[in-house]
Amino acid sequence: MARDSKESLVNRTLNSGLIGQRPRKGRKSNIKAPSSKRHQKLVFAFGKSTEGRADMRSLLGGKGANLAEMASIGLPVPPGFTISTRVCNAFYENNGAYPSGLSKTVEKEIVNLEIQMNRGFGDPIDPLLLSVRSGAPESMPGMMDTILNLGLNDQTVKGLAVKTGNKRFAYDCYRRFIQMYGSVVLGVRAANDSSEDPFNEILSHIKGEADVEDDMDLEVDALVNLVKKYKSLIKKRCGKEFPQDVYEQLWGAVSAVFGSWKNERAVLYRQRYGIPTSSGTAVNIQTMVFGNLGQNSGTGVAFTRNPANGEKQLYGEYLINAQGEDVVSGVRTPNPISQMKKDLPENYKKLIRIQRRLEKHFRDMQDFEFTIENGALFLLQTRNGKRTGVAAVRIAVDMNKERLMDQKTALLKIPAESIDALLVPIFDPNAIKNVRQVGRGLPAGPGAASGKIVFSSDKARYEVKLGNRVILCRMETSPDDLKGMLISEGVLTTRGGVSSHAALVARQLGKVCVCGAADVLINYRRKEMVVNGKKLKEGDELSIDGSTGAIYAESIPTVSSEVERVLAGRGRKKALPGSNYHLFQTVMKWADKYRRLRVRTNADTPIMSKQAINYGAEGIGLCRTEHMFFDEGRIDLMRRMILAATEKERRASLKKLLPYQRRDFRGLFQSMAGRPVTIRLLDPPLHEFLPGDLKLQREMAKRLDMSLGEVKKRMDVLHEENPMLGCRGCRLGILYPEITEMQVRAIFEAAKQVMLKDGNPPVRPEIMVPLVGFSSELADQVSVVRRVAEDVMKESGVQIDYQVGTMIEVPRAVVTAAEIAEVADFFSFGTNDLTQMTLGLSRDDMGAFFESYTQKEIYDSNPFVSIDESGVGRLILYAVEQGKSARSDLKLGICGEHGGDPASIAFCHGAGLDYVSCSPPRVPVARLAAAQAALIDPN
Amino acid sequence: MARDSKESLVNRTLNSGLIGQRPRKGRKSNIKAPSSKRHQKLVFAFGKSTEGRADMRSLLGGKGANLAEMASIGLPVPPGFTISTRVCNAFYENNGAYPSGLSKTVEKEIVNLEIQMNRGFGDPIDPLLLSVRSGAPESMPGMMDTILNLGLNDQTVKGLAVKTGNKRFAYDCYRRFIQMYGSVVLGVRAANDSSEDPFNEILSHIKGEADVEDDMDLEVDALVNLVKKYKSLIKKRCGKEFPQDVYEQLWGAVSAVFGSWKNERAVLYRQRYGIPTSSGTAVNIQTMVFGNLGQNSGTGVAFTRNPANGEKQLYGEYLINAQGEDVVSGVRTPNPISQMKKDLPENYKKLIRIQRRLEKHFRDMQDFEFTIENGALFLLQTRNGKRTGVAAVRIAVDMNKERLMDQKTALLKIPAESIDALLVPIFDPNAIKNVRQVGRGLPAGPGAASGKIVFSSDKARYEVKLGNRVILCRMETSPDDLKGMLISEGVLTTRGGVSSHAALVARQLGKVCVCGAADVLINYRRKEMVVNGKKLKEGDELSIDGSTGAIYAESIPTVSSEVERVLAGRGRKKALPGSNYHLFQTVMKWADKYRRLRVRTNADTPIMSKQAINYGAEGIGLCRTEHMFFDEGRIDLMRRMILAATEKERRASLKKLLPYQRRDFRGLFQSMAGRPVTIRLLDPPLHEFLPGDLKLQREMAKRLDMSLGEVKKRMDVLHEENPMLGCRGCRLGILYPEITEMQVRAIFEAAKQVMLKDGNPPVRPEIMVPLVGFSSELADQVSVVRRVAEDVMKESGVQIDYQVGTMIEVPRAVVTAAEIAEVADFFSFGTNDLTQMTLGLSRDDMGAFFESYTQKEIYDSNPFVSIDESGVGRLILYAVEQGKSARSDLKLGICGEHGGDPASIAFCHGAGLDYVSCSPPRVPVARLAAAQAALIDPN
Repeated sequence: MARDSKESLVNRTLNSGLIGQRPRKGRKSNIKAPSSKRHQKLVFAFGKSTEGRADMRSLLGGKGANLAEMASIGLPVPPGFTISTRVCNAFYENNGAYPSGLSKTVEKEIVNLEIQMNRGFGDPIDPLLLSVRSGAPESMPGMMDTILNLGLNDQTVKGLAVKTGNKRFAYDCYRRFIQMYGSVVLGVRAANDSSEDPFNEILSHIKGEADVEDDMDLEVDALVNLVKKYKSLIKKRCGKEFPQDVYEQLWGAVSAVFGSWKNERAVLYRQRYGIPTSSGTAVNIQTMVFGNLGQNSGTGVAFTRNPANGEKQLYGEYLINAQGEDVVSGVRTPNPISQMKKDLPENYKKLIRIQRRLEKHFRDMQDFEFTIENGALFLLQTRNGKRTGVAAVRIAVDMNKERLMDQKTALLKIPAESIDALLVPIFDPNAIKNVRQVGRGLPAGPGAASGKIVFSSDKARYEVKLGNRVILCRMETSPDDLKGMLISEGVLTTRGGVSSHAALVARQLGKVCVCGAADVLINYRRKEMVVNGKKLKEGDELSIDGSTGAIYAESIPTVSSEVERVLAGRGRKKALPGSNYHLFQTVMKWADKYRRLRVRTNADTPIMSKQAINYGAEGIGLCRTEHMFFDEGRIDLMRRMILAATEKERRASLKKLLPYQRRDFRGLFQSMAGRPVTIRLLDPPLHEFLPGDLKLQREMAKRLDMSLGEVKKRMDVLHEENPMLGCRGCRLGILYPEITEMQVRAIFEAAKQVMLKDGNPPVRPEIMVPLVGFSSELADQVSVVRRVAEDVMKESGVQIDYQVGTMIEVPRAVVTAAEIAEVADFFSFGTNDLTQMTLGLSRDDMGAFFESYTQKEIYDSNPFVSIDESGVGRLILYAVEQGKSARSDLKLGICGEHGGDPASIAFCHGAGLDYVSCSPPRVPVARLAAAQAALIDPN
Repeated sequence: MARDSKESLVNRTLNSGLIGQRPRKGRKSNIKAPSSKRHQKLVFAFGKSTEGRADMRSLLGGKGANLAEMASIGLPVPPGFTISTRVCNAFYENNGAYPSGLSKTVEKEIVNLEIQMNRGFGDPIDPLLLSVRSGAPESMPGMMDTILNLGLNDQTVKGLAVKTGNKRFAYDCYRRFIQMYGSVVLGVRAANDSSEDPFNEILSHIKGEADVEDDMDLEVDALVNLVKKYKSLIKKRCGKEFPQDVYEQLWGAVSAVFGSWKNERAVLYRQRYGIPTSSGTAVNIQTMVFGNLGQNSGTGVAFTRNPANGEKQLYGEYLINAQGEDVVSGVRTPNPISQMKKDLPENYKKLIRIQRRLEKHFRDMQDFEFTIENGALFLLQTRNGKRTGVAAVRIAVDMNKERLMDQKTALLKIPAESIDALLVPIFDPNAIKNVRQVGRGLPAGPGAASGKIVFSSDKARYEVKLGNRVILCRMETSPDDLKGMLISEGVLTTRGGVSSHAALVARQLGKVCVCGAADVLINYRRKEMVVNGKKLKEGDELSIDGSTGAIYAESIPTVSSEVERVLAGRGRKKALPGSNYHLFQTVMKWADKYRRLRVRTNADTPIMSKQAINYGAEGIGLCRTEHMFFDEGRIDLMRRMILAATEKERRASLKKLLPYQRRDFRGLFQSMAGRPVTIRLLDPPLHEFLPGDLKLQREMAKRLDMSLGEVKKRMDVLHEENPMLGCRGCRLGILYPEITEMQVRAIFEAAKQVMLKDGNPPVRPEIMVPLVGFSSELADQVSVVRRVAEDVMKESGVQIDYQVGTMIEVPRAVVTAAEIAEVADFFSFGTNDLTQMTLGLSRDDMGAFFESYTQKEIYDSNPFVSIDESGVGRLILYAVEQGKSARSDLKLGICGEHGGDPASIAFCHGAGLDYVSCSPPRVPVARLAAAQAALIDPN
């Protein structure tokens, strides 16, 4: 039982669709359809009798499971049934064929619905209408297809008209259905991004003829005409009539939904969030209820708390006399939910009760859809609400205070990435004083962003390739814009509210977003937009503030967040309860209580290391000494060393570099105040220090008093076909031991100087040898390190407690980890290079095929972002086991960029590493991720 | 007992110092000094009572063990003792200090010698003189130091003069001793390659003063004067007197010998032959006998068979009135041993008896040294004789016929590499007709070589770096010339016989060698040589025939060997018993009887595959399809394909390439006549097909009707930082499936065409996908292959039995081998790339540090020549295990260049692979090596 409840906690957390929280790969199997034969039930009803539960989401999808859960606790849910994810997998395994027996089962469920609703599917007198929606185990909002009003045809539309006494309504439903079905099932769509949808084109034309602005103003005849025109469009484009058989409609819709599981945007989405293809989607078939039956009907979307900032309030939007898609699509700008209090007071009261009921039952912030049909309120869906990082933190902290969840659950509810949202930069208050705000929209994704205006994903990609930052500006966004949103700094839309697609996705991506900015008029054709009369062209600078909704027509500098300023000792008064700083510290305190992994930082300068310490870093895990050589003043010394013809010349240059290095290390040691500092010896190939450009080479030659010919000759010698696999890392130190000697001397002399100052705690240098593949390489460098260290300690009489270890970044180092551990005090996994070599994949060169690999789902996720667990990960586990077997007190860490990635941190925790090291801004994320890993896997 | 005899067979084989036969790494421990404490004896006597045996070579070294063995079977050996290799290891472990008790033990042994010889060490009346020589477990001829005549000083020289009644002899011994000791122990040497030895400079001066040509003609007074001058040279260079204390002399010499274990040339030698440093050297201290006591004395070196061609004859050289070093060093050109029959008939008869005795006892061809002191014959050393490849084969076949060894032993006695010697090219008989032979020397290393004349190793390296072939020409070679010999096509010396250093080493390296060419006068300073009056400068072309001794002053084309010509059906009459062809076939027949590994070849053309079949290849293990695209006529089609902007354009070019590929495959399938043919899909990065040079780019652009700008733009896109890790291998086929489709279509259409011809056996294509790291990559390509294959088979109605498999060359493929095996019919280890990625080492770029790594002994051997067993090897073992666990009938092979390397073949045998694949000329070596591996490890 205890185990079950833990499992379900974990699963709830993993599957809650939290922003940016990828499921751990090792746990993929949890969300696969069970393969055992005992559950071969394919279809699950909900409504009067309900067969599903909230914890069956892997089988029923999130939507289906929650519909079943709501129905079973007595919330008003229109009856329906769910075709399970099992069928999706079978559908793909059998090239689009369904399991035998499925059609019979579905027909039986339809009959059940007919009985419950006392209507007939395809009945020309009183037709049963259905919605067909996707619903995957992990929420993928807007990525897959939906069909509403299914069951209408030339006959049933008449019955509906009679039954509702509203012919206009019936034909409005019918034309919506034909458009949806035509577009989704029959593929009648716009040819590309910038051309108009063919149905909308006809609609515009008809509206023009009728001289009306709004669809709602179209008369019945116009709608009947529209239906006729839509049907001939379909006949023209598909070569056959729009289907009149309601079962043909149904299976067409079901197949389209299953088919949409592998459309490009769904694949891209899964790629980004590490959702396995094998999880599949379910299809929910549900009785239609109508929000568009008149002024006593309506539809809306609500959150039980504010998803942007986390405040406790019923938050959302609704439209009177509308269908659900009208709210979500952003075509009409809806009213804030608070207005319902006045317009529909009874139903508002019901919603408030439902808000409480849902939070108490699901114990998380809910995002739910409702429809009011002639005054009767129905819930169409609930799910854990997406939220911004700030909101995630605040909701977790508040719900813990409200005893809705305990501390551990609250911690697990905060996607580790979201702590970053508290640390995002804001516009420089001084700079912004002088900037005129040109417009305003709804604040939908907090943060401050500046960039060039782009109106399409393609243009966004073009500009980003040129190295520019962009703000994607769209009237409204569709799932096709995902590509552009991914690479933009921020998103601006002119239509749609805070629950529009743009807002949802932006929050999920952590993008700055301002939406529904009615002040802004976009003209795609002219590639310009007008903001309150000010004309802006594509490529012009724009700034948006996603926390206030403000729009500025220029680029504005940003400054650090409130949290960072308080941490750095500026603006203490902002540290009040409820402030971002307070939230941050609360969560970090919790995290530190549960995590086992230590968190270090990758830093080369005192400024970086101080920031990292403020963020909670417990040491430096990687100081890249080469960065120290790029400063003006010393780069030429470095170059002189590299270009030296003899060891003597080389030593002369090194001698001059020594004081610089010593000073750098002194600064670092002082700022780290006794915390361990891992210093990597010189790593990159030497030619990286030389100018590539002829003019710069000539200037350098002149400064160094060499001929250009000599310089070129030496550069030729240094040229490498595959620098990644060339003369770098420890190979440099073995070839030129004098370089290692200089660096080690600088380290120990700096340590001595710091320690001789009163009050300084002992310095703890950990010297790290890069690119070791043979234990003999490490042994060679260790002997140099120890010799020089002894020399300096003897000279100064100061005893320094130090360690010498190695990066594990060459596959051979993994294979021979036991031998290497015999000469190493520690291992630090250099997962960047280890990934490159293990996968035979140069990060610089993977662009050519990465997109293709992504589409074909060959890589689970980008292996340079999250550790490739089944490849590189296994090597790490092996190296840990072998290393520990040779030396039980071996210290283990990771210093590749994966050290700041939550999924990779969870892996490192499981692998038994002692610490992760990441860039200073990632330290809080790492602390939180480490705690979550420890909670999920307490061993 | 059975096990012991097998062990000893193996060890004898491994340790016999055969040419080019590296010991298997896994067996290294066999030649380490035993670490257990029970044998802590450090010194072993031989002579009257003998403590060692031939099988104690790991402890006593080869020389010491064989001296002991000879003494124990009653052969005349001057008494002495051996300081074991244990002491060498202790010496290095303790920074040059000896184990306690050693000096006492040595003194005791000296006393024993004094008693046996009835002389006193340092006794001014009747001094005991000693030789001090190195002797490692594996023969390293000339690599380490030797001191003769030790025990002479200003007093004992007088005693020796009186005792021998030959003052000239005594001072001659003394001056030799001082020179050797000065050079070896005290380091008084020439500053560099081209300057004269300082002792020889004095000697020349004295000879000039005395107006004599030969050392032997110097009078006593001149020698006394020489001794005086030598001693002051030493005092001047060392700052102290030449040591007069005989024990000081002894320990100085012993330390020098141990020290020489790690001199540069010894390290290089061990590197080349994979001899572990830990094996150490022993030191042999032995009573001096003198070959320079007059006309009834002499010294010589003999082989029990001819080491150049293997014929059964006493073969060797001797000098009357000389010390051993005179023969070996090449300073005097000795007489052929057959001349002894006339000059010293009694001793010649004794030698013939010893020849038989040695072969019968040691059951191998012996290389022994003897000295005749006043008519008494002593054996100073015996060892298994180095021999050319041809000789190795002939001796093994003959000794089997003579029942000196059984077939298995005979097979193991032939270094696998040496079969190559039967296949070396010879000068084109037609071309040579018109070439005048300018001179002649002794044929000392068979084969034909042409190249530029170089006089030093440095110059050789310079020319070779420029891509030129060189012939190293030296008056005589010293171990310092090893570097140059390694990279030369052949070696020519003007002095020294067939057992000179040059000849020995050249035979061992498989280099063409002509030695003792008295017609040739070299002038190092002027960098020229005169051959019978014809002046040749450094850089001029030279050809030498190591089978005849002929020298030609120009470059001459070569043609294939006799064996190859007979195999190809030309010149059947050469196939007589005793012919090279007959030897070759005998050994190959034996090999095929015992080997388990199949041998395939890497071939892309019918010509290559026919040669390989003649050599016994059983299939193609690697056909690199990219080689087929480089032909004129099609390279532009390929380029058009690469530069295509759209898939349509690409497909159009591919369509044109298809007939070419089909024709290539047809030729290959036809030539392989039903043997399996493994075809690798396109592998290299596309930019390799484009011209790098601007002019060629412009020409190509013109031919392809493109602008240079377009070409450059596309090339920029294709440029990669690390092409090794870029868009290549299966990544190409995944990105552009149409390339895979074309290749597969070409393969199957070709197979169909061949099979439809009457009498052709079924074609067995095995399609190999390169650079797979993820099973999903392979699955993607396998599905393309199977789809196209089905299409072609359906179109043609011909059923083709084919397989699809993958290279294992990316470390991740090893890690996930079980998953990959589920979609692969076979694995072929691409050990070139696997080594590059596992070691993080680009073969193209390792030059920068490889020498330094070699010197520091960081790499055991070049990992691109022999499989790095403890790194890459472990990965291979893991992949085999995982692959087999997933698919028990998985076929396993290797197609990297290691597939032709005997040590690697032994590894592949042990790893349980099914076949190795190598270049056609390596096929015979691989067959032999595979048999040897099976004999050593029959599992």
